[in-house]
Amino acid sequence: MPTTPHVEKHFEASETVRDVVIGMADGLTVPFALAAGLSGTVSQTEIVVIAGLAEIAAGSIAMGLGGYLAARTDRDHYLSERQREMRETVELPGKEREEVADVFRGFGMSEVDIAPVVEAIASDQKRWVDFMMRFELGFEEPDPRRARHSAATIAGSYVLGGLVPLAPYVLMRELYSALTVSVAVTLVALFLFGYVKGRLTGIAAWRGGLQTVAIGGLASAAAFGLARWISH
Amino acid sequence: MPTTPHVEKHFEASETVRDVVIGMADGLTVPFALAAGLSGTVSQTEIVVIAGLAEIAAGSIAMGLGGYLAARTDRDHYLSERQREMRETVELPGKEREEVADVFRGFGMSEVDIAPVVEAIASDQKRWVDFMMRFELGFEEPDPRRARHSAATIAGSYVLGGLVPLAPYVLMRELYSALTVSVAVTLVALFLFGYVKGRLTGIAAWRGGLQTVAIGGLASAAAFGLARWISH
Repeated sequence: MPTTPHVEKHFEASETVRDVVIGMADGLTVPFALAAGLSGTVSQTEIVVIAGLAEIAAGSIAMGLGGYLAARTDRDHYLSERQREMRETVELPGKEREEVADVFRGFGMSEVDIAPVVEAIASDQKRWVDFMMRFELGFEEPDPRRARHSAATIAGSYVLGGLVPLAPYVLMRELYSALTVSVAVTLVALFLFGYVKGRLTGIAAWRGGLQTVAIGGLASAAAFGLARWISH
Repeated sequence: MPTTPHVEKHFEASETVRDVVIGMADGLTVPFALAAGLSGTVSQTEIVVIAGLAEIAAGSIAMGLGGYLAARTDRDHYLSERQREMRETVELPGKEREEVADVFRGFGMSEVDIAPVVEAIASDQKRWVDFMMRFELGFEEPDPRRARHSAATIAGSYVLGGLVPLAPYVLMRELYSALTVSVAVTLVALFLFGYVKGRLTGIAAWRGGLQTVAIGGLASAAAFGLARWISH
């Protein structure tokens, strides 16, 4: 594949960043919202802590394994599409040559310029299939180690994120004090998370911070409101 | 972008399938695991229902908005990379021409054949930048409507998935009966979901079914065990 080391590195990093973002965004938000929601209806911090930890266990495992399977599915899908293209270059070489030419026609090149390009690409089956996968279908070859790495990153980030809103309920006896501290600590954590995420992905950092605070706030308000509404 | 309608349709469908899978996988698993975990420690179905519904509200909002922002981030990232390439074709045209040539060198074409191709592509700035985005950096232009569509699909699938394990706790008074029915109904639902997912993504359907059952089972067992362990 004709990519420079710089580009590869760029992709690798953004996939790990994305996994941390996926895990931590939900880890900070859902246990926070659940704990806040339950604080409106139960009377002991113990139930909030149990529900919160059960949620963190369930959420991190579900998201981590989900990420694992998603990466595996991407890879299986890539390999099965690749085999289909491989077959087509053997069974329908004329049609596949036309598809290569179509890609270059899309860039406004003349038929005279296109002919040698198609010839060069189709002269080697592996090169030909690589070209179709990448340029006709837009598939990048997924890294085989990605699934395991992705699962661990997502699950770990979820646990780390989830312990932030839950810590006050573990450390404090009085439910409403714990709720207040949890809301304050988590909103700060959500803001910092969104701020750093914004910087890493090249979006305005302040906007990133406010976005994650808004998501956490909305999710918690909905959970709180719903729990209150049911229990009254 | 030079893609055929067939290819567009193919991508559109697989992105929606992926969003349904993302939402429903977690929706079926996390509320199920949380409810099972709480059943080991609390004595009323009411608390399980409140915690479960609060989790569904929080989870669907967090995942839906998370999906929205992820799609927006992809698009912003695409647009900012595009602007950088645009600047580079003006400021470093020689280097950018070399990068176009490198792509074709990667396909084993001779310098004689490459020269007119580079000339044709670099003769129009938009075409040149399109080429660099797609062929050098491997970016597909993201659909602008994707963010909203993605958010609604993920959140809706989460809610639908989450109501399956929770329904028995709503409909039945006795906690352990509700737990038993919830486990049975949800394992069947997880299997069917994984089976259909397997068919849609071209993986063996039975393997798909067993995978989602394993994830749901593991997450629930962890949540149940953890909740039990804390409360004793």
